[in-house]
Amino acid sequence: MRRTVSALVSSLAVDPGKAGPLHRQLYFALREAILTGRLAPGVKLPSTRVLAKDLSVSRNTVAAAFDQLLAEGYAEARTGSGTYVTERLPDSLLRSPASQPSARSRRPKPTLSQRGQAVASLGTVQRHRNRPFAPGLPELDLFPMKEWSRLLARHWRRPDVGALLGGDPAGEAPLREAVASYLGAARSVRCDADQVIIVSGSQQAIDLIARVLIDPGAPVWIEEPGYVGTRGALTATGARLVPVPVDGDGLDVDAGIARAAAARLACVSPSHQFPLGVTMAPARRIALLQWAAAHDAFVLEDDYDSEYRYAGRPLASLQGMDDQDRVFYVGTFSKVMFPALRLGYLVAPPDLVDALLAVRRHVDTQPSSVAQAALTDFIADGHLSSHIRRMRLLYAERQDAFVSLAQEKLRGLVTVERQDSGMHLIGWLPEGADDRAVSEIAARQGVEAPPLSHLYTHGPSRPGLMLGFAGIPAEQMAPALDRLTAAVGNGVSTSRQATHK
Amino acid sequence: MRRTVSALVSSLAVDPGKAGPLHRQLYFALREAILTGRLAPGVKLPSTRVLAKDLSVSRNTVAAAFDQLLAEGYAEARTGSGTYVTERLPDSLLRSPASQPSARSRRPKPTLSQRGQAVASLGTVQRHRNRPFAPGLPELDLFPMKEWSRLLARHWRRPDVGALLGGDPAGEAPLREAVASYLGAARSVRCDADQVIIVSGSQQAIDLIARVLIDPGAPVWIEEPGYVGTRGALTATGARLVPVPVDGDGLDVDAGIARAAAARLACVSPSHQFPLGVTMAPARRIALLQWAAAHDAFVLEDDYDSEYRYAGRPLASLQGMDDQDRVFYVGTFSKVMFPALRLGYLVAPPDLVDALLAVRRHVDTQPSSVAQAALTDFIADGHLSSHIRRMRLLYAERQDAFVSLAQEKLRGLVTVERQDSGMHLIGWLPEGADDRAVSEIAARQGVEAPPLSHLYTHGPSRPGLMLGFAGIPAEQMAPALDRLTAAVGNGVSTSRQATHK
Repeated sequence: MRRTVSALVSSLAVDPGKAGPLHRQLYFALREAILTGRLAPGVKLPSTRVLAKDLSVSRNTVAAAFDQLLAEGYAEARTGSGTYVTERLPDSLLRSPASQPSARSRRPKPTLSQRGQAVASLGTVQRHRNRPFAPGLPELDLFPMKEWSRLLARHWRRPDVGALLGGDPAGEAPLREAVASYLGAARSVRCDADQVIIVSGSQQAIDLIARVLIDPGAPVWIEEPGYVGTRGALTATGARLVPVPVDGDGLDVDAGIARAAAARLACVSPSHQFPLGVTMAPARRIALLQWAAAHDAFVLEDDYDSEYRYAGRPLASLQGMDDQDRVFYVGTFSKVMFPALRLGYLVAPPDLVDALLAVRRHVDTQPSSVAQAALTDFIADGHLSSHIRRMRLLYAERQDAFVSLAQEKLRGLVTVERQDSGMHLIGWLPEGADDRAVSEIAARQGVEAPPLSHLYTHGPSRPGLMLGFAGIPAEQMAPALDRLTAAVGNGVSTSRQATHK
Repeated sequence: MRRTVSALVSSLAVDPGKAGPLHRQLYFALREAILTGRLAPGVKLPSTRVLAKDLSVSRNTVAAAFDQLLAEGYAEARTGSGTYVTERLPDSLLRSPASQPSARSRRPKPTLSQRGQAVASLGTVQRHRNRPFAPGLPELDLFPMKEWSRLLARHWRRPDVGALLGGDPAGEAPLREAVASYLGAARSVRCDADQVIIVSGSQQAIDLIARVLIDPGAPVWIEEPGYVGTRGALTATGARLVPVPVDGDGLDVDAGIARAAAARLACVSPSHQFPLGVTMAPARRIALLQWAAAHDAFVLEDDYDSEYRYAGRPLASLQGMDDQDRVFYVGTFSKVMFPALRLGYLVAPPDLVDALLAVRRHVDTQPSSVAQAALTDFIADGHLSSHIRRMRLLYAERQDAFVSLAQEKLRGLVTVERQDSGMHLIGWLPEGADDRAVSEIAARQGVEAPPLSHLYTHGPSRPGLMLGFAGIPAEQMAPALDRLTAAVGNGVSTSRQATHK
């Protein structure tokens, strides 16, 4: 026995050419041998002197490896006798066949929580891709990156200690003031800076609001169709989703009341409904605020792309019409700057700010205070508003170009109409077409055109595609539209055949 | 009536010197008058010509204000007659006394969700402050900020389009590889880069894990005493907290099993228990892993300051001992760089990575990809490891200086003992002292010394203070300790008087 152990231990691979110090290599090799049972409980290990000689390493190396095994309970020292593999090492730690990586698939899958299962089974959020017609993709080449990186570098060079420690959990005060004053002027939002919370994006805002207001299983109205990210963020908090149909006047408030009058929250995009682009009618807005005030309920107004309006006067925000402190207003800098910025804002009713901040402090703290300081300067120096102005003109031209080309090239297959605002349009497919199939074919052709049906909780919907026009130069549209036309032609004929089977 | 209206409207304050365009000032003033009832439903508004003359503004200005009121439903146009305040404006939108800001406090407080209430009632997470003895405060002046800002600037100057769009939801692959290889070498963590998820910090990691595993009301073991942030993050997900006592060998696993054998998750800090600093004994580690494997439960190992070990060999991570894929390993760069960095990592069992990423995609996306790229370079160029080495030597010296000084100055009042690792020590107060009172007095003297009792879910505990030594130069310790001594003297005598009342 003794000789076997010695031979085994001496055969352990310890190689000065490999990564990591020798004593750690030896420690890992010994632990592996103990865990796999090659070194059985109670077996005496060779002395440090013998092992050092056999392995051609220093005694210190062996001693260090043994120390680690002793400290972790894999080995035990018996005074005057030597070092032994621990007798009482529980069986469960000995590597059983089930713990080999190759056997992992044979183990039962871990049980997920209900909300974990629900989220995992949702479709994924559309990732931003730099491909023709990706919805929500801004023009990145024209973003004043030089100014932005200069401001960031300036703040990083000499960050104040407060900024390095984390700053204000609501977000940096100067940025909150800039947001409050911008929203007051541009969107008729009535708030002061104390109501503004800087968030990483609209999904974090939804998450915070839902945790503060919604108990698991409580109903929440969502728009049907609507943003998958909203559904996902709510599902991840355990809320029960109540899809409420959207028509030409926006969310059908009466339908919502009929389905779940006792909902605690209604999530809407009234300025430019996502994805359909309709504007919520004044009477609907009033009815929604009335319902909220009467039922101790709240409204989450997602004003995700209100900066890009090309014609007509923008409607003021729902928040600005609300005299009962029932509206959360959510917006983002991701669309007007770039998606990876991860800075947005939440304007909360004054009564709820403390509770939101309590949750935020415990779940995560605020985004980088240095980035917030740079953004504050970017706004104050006028870079943001001049970038938005330039992009508004550019996107208006791009929409014109896109609609003309699409009406010409997709005639009879896809109906596209100009909208007064936003960064995408809906391309309506013929009744009965399978928009998912068309979208998949288009994706294989390098064209992003997410299917509308993906944005419905329940089918059926009129089939359509979301088509982003903001991120693609006009001169690149024609070849991309040719590919889309081919994809639609293929997809529609495929779906017709499927229908006739 | 007509004259009154005309007089009223003409008296509206519209001032070219004030902020915002005139038509918006006029719109706000008219809306205010409608909402407060000064302009009653059905009242005819003066013509644009008359009003423009009275207010000395252009007719376009008045027309623009009227358009906005019409669009929002506050006014209605009657063909050939003029513009009227809407008849059917619902009462609820008319500003009632309850909607005046001054009356806000008379309205019932909005109802919070159960978890919202629970989180709001928790103590706040200790914020980092740059004051003597603030626990967890690193030395910020010696951080190589020049290198860090240079790397950030380099990546911001020419960010690739992928980085601007958001990058990989698990975090950037090169950073995940660097983390996996660092943790393998330094902490015996066994993982590959696919198991690493870059998070904003340990609380985000806890949040993701709890949402995937824990249904509302399901029990989770937490250390007693333990980190308030862990309690908060779990509470915010609706988990039921089961405090499990910590003794000199770390978490008492048998006590946990007696209290809630069916818990799905146990949160521990085995390397250096927060706040007591004890190391979890090998037998306890083995028992914890055994329990988890037997009960389809998981262990969350928070290795929050393992980089700073001054004596003795570090125990390998619990994750490295686990052959059953039951351990989540969580760490952060905030302690070794600076708190506002907001970058940390979560190593998950392979089976659970997809579910965690599904939740993360819907709740929030990953931290800034540019910062991740800069951090990858910071690690690869050796800046991080050399900074950690320098800080390890410095903090060891600071601990020595602090313990010597504290033992001299606080003799008889506070017992302080050196620890082998970490950035803070416990100053034990005499039995019966009120550590909260002492901490408050110290805070008024400009010294941070959070009370230990704040870190217990249930009392009583032996009273003590958390004392950070890492962020304060040795030469500044003596005067700060004098202030602490005075505070403790005051606080202890106050508590004694209170006890004898």
